[in-house]
Amino acid sequence: MKLTSLVFVTSNPGKLREAQDVLGVELQHQALDLVEIQSLDLGEIVRDKARRAYAHVQRPVLVEDTSLELVGMGGFPGPLIRWLLASVGPAGIARLAHAFTDPRAVVRCMACAFDGQKEIFGLGVIRGMIAEAPRGHGGFGWDSVFIPEGSGGRSYGEMPPAEKNAISHRRRALEALKQALSEG
Amino acid sequence: MKLTSLVFVTSNPGKLREAQDVLGVELQHQALDLVEIQSLDLGEIVRDKARRAYAHVQRPVLVEDTSLELVGMGGFPGPLIRWLLASVGPAGIARLAHAFTDPRAVVRCMACAFDGQKEIFGLGVIRGMIAEAPRGHGGFGWDSVFIPEGSGGRSYGEMPPAEKNAISHRRRALEALKQALSEG
Repeated sequence: MKLTSLVFVTSNPGKLREAQDVLGVELQHQALDLVEIQSLDLGEIVRDKARRAYAHVQRPVLVEDTSLELVGMGGFPGPLIRWLLASVGPAGIARLAHAFTDPRAVVRCMACAFDGQKEIFGLGVIRGMIAEAPRGHGGFGWDSVFIPEGSGGRSYGEMPPAEKNAISHRRRALEALKQALSEG
Repeated sequence: MKLTSLVFVTSNPGKLREAQDVLGVELQHQALDLVEIQSLDLGEIVRDKARRAYAHVQRPVLVEDTSLELVGMGGFPGPLIRWLLASVGPAGIARLAHAFTDPRAVVRCMACAFDGQKEIFGLGVIRGMIAEAPRGHGGFGWDSVFIPEGSGGRSYGEMPPAEKNAISHRRRALEALKQALSEG
């Protein structure tokens, strides 16, 4: 599989933009909001999602999913972060993490290329902490409350896009995937 | 469809026991842990679950799912309560609800009978609040932290099973389903 032959299936324009910036290529894409299965296991969700995407598109696909694990909550919400964000927003995520008195968080992104037979994965992990309140207006989703390690205490939302994209979980996942694809 | 012709598909022995107590019949059952889709919409999850159950069992099925909505969190986690409970336990749910300073909660249970063509629903709703800490050793799941309205301030976990089952969200859903089934 080649990156440029894949159709990136996502309903999130922020993810598409970031993926193209990171990979430095124009990706084919399709805006489908795929059903995802309930699980706290990111890998299980992504494998299922790749199959659903392929069933729709009938061509080699690229999908990804992201997990935000709050250390103080035993890893919750993990891949269910989307629903927490939709319900309480970034400020609510901050409130939650601090109510559980441990602001540490682990963000994982898993990308998967699937051509109907073979699946190739890329995983990106970044550790950090949850801010006490949203900060900055960059990025999307929960970027304003996640402070990655080595950022000098700034949230993703406080970084210019190029700086975020140089270190982000999504860059790490997509680069790992690119590497895995090049190895066949 | 008749109640006794349905196969109750659930991996949760607590739910099976409660359903049999409430309906006063022995139910056929099968212990499958079905995949559920990610959503905050209980109806959408239950319809999908009924189809998956039927595809496995190939006979008329009964499924149900339960949602616990924290009013202070805009309804989160709703049908995703299972994962919150698995991550932080009943004490964590209590901590969460009180961190968001509104202890009110709404519990919904939706039961669905599906014979491959026709789907019949029963919905049970009960309002109440989340205790500041777990109380009582009865019930299962999050029963120790949910105080239903009209219970004199006692949690489900502090009630004898017969008393809980006389008022519970699951009783209401199953009775509504029984009624709907009898009306054809």
